[in-house]
Amino acid sequence: MAQDLRSQELKNPVDVAEYLFRRLHQVGVRSVHGLPGDYNLVALDYLPKAGLHWVGNCNELNAGYAADGYARVKGISALVTTFGVGELSAANAIAGAYSEYVPIVHVVGYPTTAAQRDGALLHHTLGNGDFNAFNKMFRQISCAVSLLNDPHEAATLIDNAIRECYLKSRPVYISLPTDIVTKKVDGDRLNTPLDLSYPPNEEEKEDYVVDVILKYLHAAKNPVILVDACAIRHRALEETHELIEKSGIPTFVAPMGKGAVNETLPNYGGVYAGDGSNEGVRERVESSDLVLSIGAVKSDFNTAGFTYRVSKLKSIDFHSYGITVRYSEYPGVRMNTVIRKVTQKMGKLNIEAGPKPNNNIPHAELSSSEPTITQAWLWPRLGQWLKENDIVITETGTSNFGIWETRFPANVTAISQVLWGSIGYATGSCQGAALAAKEKGIKRTILFTGDGSFQLTAQEVSTMIRNNLNPIIFVICNDGYTIERCIHGWKAAYNDIQLWDYKALPKVFGGTPETMAVYRVETKDELEKLFSDKEFSSGENDRLRFVELVMPWDDAPVALKSTAESAAKRNSQA
Amino acid sequence: MAQDLRSQELKNPVDVAEYLFRRLHQVGVRSVHGLPGDYNLVALDYLPKAGLHWVGNCNELNAGYAADGYARVKGISALVTTFGVGELSAANAIAGAYSEYVPIVHVVGYPTTAAQRDGALLHHTLGNGDFNAFNKMFRQISCAVSLLNDPHEAATLIDNAIRECYLKSRPVYISLPTDIVTKKVDGDRLNTPLDLSYPPNEEEKEDYVVDVILKYLHAAKNPVILVDACAIRHRALEETHELIEKSGIPTFVAPMGKGAVNETLPNYGGVYAGDGSNEGVRERVESSDLVLSIGAVKSDFNTAGFTYRVSKLKSIDFHSYGITVRYSEYPGVRMNTVIRKVTQKMGKLNIEAGPKPNNNIPHAELSSSEPTITQAWLWPRLGQWLKENDIVITETGTSNFGIWETRFPANVTAISQVLWGSIGYATGSCQGAALAAKEKGIKRTILFTGDGSFQLTAQEVSTMIRNNLNPIIFVICNDGYTIERCIHGWKAAYNDIQLWDYKALPKVFGGTPETMAVYRVETKDELEKLFSDKEFSSGENDRLRFVELVMPWDDAPVALKSTAESAAKRNSQA
Ligand SMILES: Cc1ncc(C[n+]2csc(CCOP(=O)(O)OP(=O)(O)O)c2C)c(N)n1
Ligand SMILES: Cc1ncc(C[n+]2csc(CCOP(=O)(O)OP(=O)(O)O)c2C)c(N)n1
Ligand SMILES: [Mg+2]
Ligand SMILES: [Mg+2]
Repeated sequence: MAQDLRSQELKNPVDVAEYLFRRLHQVGVRSVHGLPGDYNLVALDYLPKAGLHWVGNCNELNAGYAADGYARVKGISALVTTFGVGELSAANAIAGAYSEYVPIVHVVGYPTTAAQRDGALLHHTLGNGDFNAFNKMFRQISCAVSLLNDPHEAATLIDNAIRECYLKSRPVYISLPTDIVTKKVDGDRLNTPLDLSYPPNEEEKEDYVVDVILKYLHAAKNPVILVDACAIRHRALEETHELIEKSGIPTFVAPMGKGAVNETLPNYGGVYAGDGSNEGVRERVESSDLVLSIGAVKSDFNTAGFTYRVSKLKSIDFHSYGITVRYSEYPGVRMNTVIRKVTQKMGKLNIEAGPKPNNNIPHAELSSSEPTITQAWLWPRLGQWLKENDIVITETGTSNFGIWETRFPANVTAISQVLWGSIGYATGSCQGAALAAKEKGIKRTILFTGDGSFQLTAQEVSTMIRNNLNPIIFVICNDGYTIERCIHGWKAAYNDIQLWDYKALPKVFGGTPETMAVYRVETKDELEKLFSDKEFSSGENDRLRFVELVMPWDDAPVALKSTAESAAKRNSQA
Repeated sequence: MAQDLRSQELKNPVDVAEYLFRRLHQVGVRSVHGLPGDYNLVALDYLPKAGLHWVGNCNELNAGYAADGYARVKGISALVTTFGVGELSAANAIAGAYSEYVPIVHVVGYPTTAAQRDGALLHHTLGNGDFNAFNKMFRQISCAVSLLNDPHEAATLIDNAIRECYLKSRPVYISLPTDIVTKKVDGDRLNTPLDLSYPPNEEEKEDYVVDVILKYLHAAKNPVILVDACAIRHRALEETHELIEKSGIPTFVAPMGKGAVNETLPNYGGVYAGDGSNEGVRERVESSDLVLSIGAVKSDFNTAGFTYRVSKLKSIDFHSYGITVRYSEYPGVRMNTVIRKVTQKMGKLNIEAGPKPNNNIPHAELSSSEPTITQAWLWPRLGQWLKENDIVITETGTSNFGIWETRFPANVTAISQVLWGSIGYATGSCQGAALAAKEKGIKRTILFTGDGSFQLTAQEVSTMIRNNLNPIIFVICNDGYTIERCIHGWKAAYNDIQLWDYKALPKVFGGTPETMAVYRVETKDELEKLFSDKEFSSGENDRLRFVELVMPWDDAPVALKSTAESAAKRNSQA
């Protein structure tokens, strides 16, 4: 093959794969999740020289979940899969990241451009010569699809895709044909880092909105702040924190906003989710005359079944795509700088204190002589055990609702999928989060998953061991799909699961006494003992800790019960 | 809610879910694969009264693979998933079934029609009110998509979807909103079974083609028959068998056609795959002056890297969608009746005998003093151990290529994914195949998978135990992705895997000495002993048998080596 003419003109030619991986490194990626496949093998050779670590997951869905968890901790992540079989295995993980605004750069190893052009009958194809069927599918769940079929536009497409991914905070799809991997692009571009700043709001418009907001804020007698997922996902936390601290306004979080706020602040009031709210919270929020709602996602499970009861007339909604004050809309005005200006200009406000959440265990639980670990007991007790900077991952199931009753120390990162709600997510995500934590020097990554959910993605514990990660894993052993039982089929066989010897798994996956420890706790006393075991609880412990947490099959957090009831009702409505 | 007016007019009203499941029962489905989710729970209540068994898989991808395996044994299968999270997890399995012509009825539990209409912000959605995003994705990999949003057309849509699924032998997608589940449809329709017969060919055209074929057949001096996957998948085996037996023409199979032909027939000649052919086969096939090619899929891995060397001028191609004689095309003429007529009318032919394949172990292997189990030794040795009616499943990896060297007893069903090639498939598929085998009274289901592949879907061994299945599972333990090493990265870290204690898994998954037995064989002698162990080999043994089959990391079947070389070359071609 003659050397490509134009590439000889490049002053500093670098291969497309190297360019891509160095760009990923520049935006903060240090580990790449995924599985090899013959359409991506040559590309993988470029990882080490770009300073990237290859994780080597057990399957692509798990790798996608892990990339999601990694991105939630580090800000962005990368996933490499192979054409057809690999990428489609990850579809659910990518859709989840799309739904929940998690930026994953998904690189798919493609057959050569020649094979694509000829419609060759290759393995991993549908046998119909259509090489675009899968990227068409991913268009539904990616904010950009870049097909690197031409080396001359490869660098631009890569830059655009990564920028889109970051700014929109959603997955992008990049095809990388095997013959393009080694094609040359202009390496000098790498000297200019990608511009990842949000385009500024139009100033006059922004100032106008700020004035409108301030007018309502000054008029308010008892305003509250309600922080939700999009404040996290669209990177408005710093601005939000300033507003909360400087204003002293009672502040609440929606379930998906858990972790967004310093819950040790005196004006932190607890979780608001309509009927699923923490004690005293519903009354306080719903009687407020102005709710500053930051990054709301008013989905069924985030509002305990649409029981969110805050009138539009009392709301100011802050979003990445615009602001809404009562019914007045200001599209295109991004919240971040608006919040900052409001904080700077707000002056003195009327403040009426809110409830003071705590991790006290409910009276009924304290006085109960039952040794079993109940949901009502567990979650506040967990709050006492958590430490600053912990990462806490919960799963669709009892844990996602139980965690509403846990008051966090400062700076806890909470990870869950309250909107997308794919089970198995938490375990995969934990692998990525624990790796990201390690890279960032965060000491503890703590996972709560259900026994049912764990069965979907259990093998990723192997990847954690392989990568020397040390998360603390709790599998809630309650004999099946309790959350489903609450919705329909209380004792139905389809809500049962096969009983596993869960705690035997880390050893099966190659764990040794040096790299892991397993536990089983059946009573409150046993859990107390475990929590007070210094080694178990230590952030300096290098071992993966795996706990079978036995709980009653028919017990569920209150918030789950009411949410489930409402879901069941909605599912049967004509 | 007022009762639907029209439903009161139905003489024999049955609920939509019951109708659907009874139709599935009528076409031969007895077990339904999948996972519950709140959007399908109410529907699952209808399974028992339709006489259907719920499998309860560990995750949806595995369930999809299992449904694929079940369909390959029983003719059709059903998969139930839940909206978004469930269905997308199964996307890769459905795409594989699409690619390889496997009929799976995929039923997806949807939110209510009301929620869809209102664009409600529900769990398992993308958060954008679009309830069609996922079915749009599945349009790329399904031969029909039926959205049951209107009870008045539900029965018709169900009937059409199942018929399409069967006749096209490809997956179909049926949405079942939770409110539609209990709506009434006309139960009297169930008294008329679905018409699953292929539309007949136009008679004059068919006879014309038959005459053309006979002309060439009579002129041929040394014709051969080559049978491939589509003969199996499009249900032309009976006709093909008649042709082979009555004509005495030397008959070969392509790798994907393994199991299509009675390999004990005197005119069976072995596997043809260009450079990957059995000994003596390439010469015989390529020197033939007429190749009757039935159901060919000339994909890279099915032709050892496009080394299929049969001129179009010497070929007659039989397909479900038409016949091609040299360059003359006869679209719309289905092969089945054409083959039958050719057999009836063919009279006397010129026959030149072909090679006689056997299961003799190559000389070099026999004389070797090495105790390790080599690929060259294993596969013919396996052929001696197999029994009539066995189901043999192999995986993308060394086993998919090794099996080319195994001559089967009569009536063996071979299952693999040579075209789609998704690893992890074989283990999932084995669950479905073993269940189908049990329903059909087939005694042995035998799985060969690689250690790397096994890690993707290992938990489905749990589902096998849960469903009291007794497959014989061999995990080829060769320290990683050997097939990938052959293509690229011989010693690359990305082709390594975490070392598991595989044989500990059945117990972890709830197996007991009554329900399972585990083995590890490291030498030829040990495998010999295992093969001659009556209990191990028995079809009457109810226990799942799980074997760690230790083989060298750097050993691969010859056919794999040449195919891999060609893949590597193609992947680097501009
Ligand atoms: C991929 C996927 N499949 C199916 C579901 C439906 N689903 C939601 S929760 C759940 C059961 C979770 O059970 P478990 O993890 O044991 O939780 P718990 O018992 O604590 O409620 C199921 C099957 C889902 N959300 N995602
Ligand atoms: C879902 C999926 N992911 C990745 C691949 C790429 N791939 C093909 S074969 C293979 C390795 C298989 O290794 P193993 O099962 O150990 O087989 P063996 O060592 O016997 O060759 C991989 C990773 C694939 N085919 N499918
Ligand atoms: Mg459970
Ligand atoms: Mg292997």
